[in-house]
Amino acid sequence: MNGEIYSYLYEKILKIGALDIYTQSIYMKKNRPAVKLCVICEEEKLSEIIELILKETTTLGIRYNKFLRETLDRKIVKIKTKYGNISIKFAYYKGKILKYSPEYEECKVIAENFKLPLKTVYEDITCTVNKYLESFRIK
Amino acid sequence: MNGEIYSYLYEKILKIGALDIYTQSIYMKKNRPAVKLCVICEEEKLSEIIELILKETTTLGIRYNKFLRETLDRKIVKIKTKYGNISIKFAYYKGKILKYSPEYEECKVIAENFKLPLKTVYEDITCTVNKYLESFRIK
Amino acid sequence: MNGEIYSYLYEKILKIGALDIYTQSIYMKKNRPAVKLCVICEEEKLSEIIELILKETTTLGIRYNKFLRETLDRKIVKIKTKYGNISIKFAYYKGKILKYSPEYEECKVIAENFKLPLKTVYEDITCTVNKYLESFRIK
Amino acid sequence: MNGEIYSYLYEKILKIGALDIYTQSIYMKKNRPAVKLCVICEEEKLSEIIELILKETTTLGIRYNKFLRETLDRKIVKIKTKYGNISIKFAYYKGKILKYSPEYEECKVIAENFKLPLKTVYEDITCTVNKYLESFRIK
Amino acid sequence: MNGEIYSYLYEKILKIGALDIYTQSIYMKKNRPAVKLCVICEEEKLSEIIELILKETTTLGIRYNKFLRETLDRKIVKIKTKYGNISIKFAYYKGKILKYSPEYEECKVIAENFKLPLKTVYEDITCTVNKYLESFRIK
Amino acid sequence: MNGEIYSYLYEKILKIGALDIYTQSIYMKKNRPAVKLCVICEEEKLSEIIELILKETTTLGIRYNKFLRETLDRKIVKIKTKYGNISIKFAYYKGKILKYSPEYEECKVIAENFKLPLKTVYEDITCTVNKYLESFRIK
Repeated sequence: MNGEIYSYLYEKILKIGALDIYTQSIYMKKNRPAVKLCVICEEEKLSEIIELILKETTTLGIRYNKFLRETLDRKIVKIKTKYGNISIKFAYYKGKILKYSPEYEECKVIAENFKLPLKTVYEDITCTVNKYLESFRIK
Repeated sequence: MNGEIYSYLYEKILKIGALDIYTQSIYMKKNRPAVKLCVICEEEKLSEIIELILKETTTLGIRYNKFLRETLDRKIVKIKTKYGNISIKFAYYKGKILKYSPEYEECKVIAENFKLPLKTVYEDITCTVNKYLESFRIK
Repeated sequence: MNGEIYSYLYEKILKIGALDIYTQSIYMKKNRPAVKLCVICEEEKLSEIIELILKETTTLGIRYNKFLRETLDRKIVKIKTKYGNISIKFAYYKGKILKYSPEYEECKVIAENFKLPLKTVYEDITCTVNKYLESFRIK
Repeated sequence: MNGEIYSYLYEKILKIGALDIYTQSIYMKKNRPAVKLCVICEEEKLSEIIELILKETTTLGIRYNKFLRETLDRKIVKIKTKYGNISIKFAYYKGKILKYSPEYEECKVIAENFKLPLKTVYEDITCTVNKYLESFRIK
Repeated sequence: MNGEIYSYLYEKILKIGALDIYTQSIYMKKNRPAVKLCVICEEEKLSEIIELILKETTTLGIRYNKFLRETLDRKIVKIKTKYGNISIKFAYYKGKILKYSPEYEECKVIAENFKLPLKTVYEDITCTVNKYLESFRIK
Repeated sequence: MNGEIYSYLYEKILKIGALDIYTQSIYMKKNRPAVKLCVICEEEKLSEIIELILKETTTLGIRYNKFLRETLDRKIVKIKTKYGNISIKFAYYKGKILKYSPEYEECKVIAENFKLPLKTVYEDITCTVNKYLESFRIK
């Protein structure tokens, strides 16, 4: 299958409401390199996603199974930093903040505007949050 | 495990009646690169395939699970092309042709005989089928 | 390094004028999965790209080498199809058309507008070009 | 996630009692290379391992499922070789020895002491065991 | 590119006289999984192989470079084993046998005829050679 | 080749003085998954490393080439943090600090002693350094 189709497919599958998508490189008989497309979705999206993949790709079949998931609750909060107010995604475990990460899309805009490496922006913001949270985090 | 064993193993597993086989590169503890062999088969072939893999490979265990599958019906039809009659695999979705592909093995023979790139042969035949089907395909 | 940085990095490297970029999964000592970023560029872009990568990523060093390349000449031509005029990229070998492909971005718009699988649009356009070229292609 | 964390994580997960761990390279949306961590464990270790992974990594969720396993019984026996007594892991299928392998850690010590390639030591010991077993192995 | 083309391509490239071929999974911009085809060949085969790859694949360009190689001399010798006379490939370093391996194709035939695991046949033959060579190998 | 040999090989190659080592998964003819071992070293270590790899592995040949490298100067400095004095590796570009990272081995010991996630320790120390450097870093 033409590799260019993936970004298109990803967009369409995410629009239906898939929780996550990824690909893995696999190797089939007769020395055929191939790509395994994996989609995580709620059960009620299943048939719509299967139909989409059957129509848009060259595959002749799709396998699926029910998995259990353990996920962290998430909340996005605006935090004041030296670059302005930034959205931070906080993840909770048993009611306490376990981890957090600045929203990448916002960091990218700042990196562009301030002409700084994205890594620097990301790190500076992370450290601002780190300072706020010192006393709250699960340790 | 010696990499040369795979083509032998593939043949034997397919002969038992597996639906599909592929490998994935994985990385284990202590920096060990390894290969994960994945076999898709009907339940009644399971024990024979497990026995074969345990005997032929170095593995000490095999994991398996039941998966659901959504597959397209397929039919192979001979279509007349400028290279002669070629087998085309048609795949159906809800009773209508959804996709099709020329049989590779036949295309290879033609590419050799006509001294053409296999890609050209494949494309020419695909376009012949495309023309026939224009009015029938699900759109 | 945070995986989210790659799309940002790709954009910036392509903006400088790199010819191509790709990543490969590698495995380092102490069971560390890592990503090798490979950039193909003309020599005069080298120092700018090196500086960018050193600044934006966590790497402590970059290796490079001169490679020879054999590339096909390309020309983009508008071809009339049932979906309208579409840009087709033709690639030439020793002055003759060797291959061609419709521009994906245009195919995507058509797929959306006509509510067709992208694969179908791509195939239909390819077959239109195939018909035009039958007599010209190197065979 | 910083790749250096894996060896640490592997150790901690194995200490809890996981049966096996491996990683796979995957590719996510927005060109993000990522690593999928797979752990095989008995059900009673599940919640402890999930908690560890949620705390130690950047992941926001873990998927799991019950798999069936077919494993070979194993027994470690000391065998006399020209390098001294070495532990050999024997694997049994339906009560008979099906395969065996010398313990790598012991082979490494011998390779160092005898200044031999590890491959040579491993092969010599394998052949010593091969000779012993000629009459017993399932064939 | 259709994955089925690889076995065909491998055969044709090897027939021209390439020393080795392999593929690597890579990831390109816009979430495109791709396959990098690597060919090792003597300089005088270069242009023929480049022409073949340009004609048979969808690639628009090929990169190449001169590498130095350090290879072991090899000699194939028939050795008498309990399965009959088998071809063994011996590899020499500074005039002495450094390693050896039975020819896989012959081992496959034996495995089929004797209804033994290929692994067992391979191991038995390796141990027969091991016994012969005990006194000659570099250690 | 038995995957268990890699950690042994890595150690031996690093002891000779290689600058870096990594592996890549590749796929060879006849459906053989394989591992490509890549070593970066100064020219004067080349022959010793080649000899080691030829002796310890099943390979019949090694390819090598001269690459240019652009690396950052590094200095390790002890920085006072709430977990005690920690070694921080600073990397310089044109005389200015460009990036830095705490030494993983020290962070691991702290994570164990303080019963904290390694990620938390690493982040806390990074933020301590971030605070010190705010005014010095290239931005």
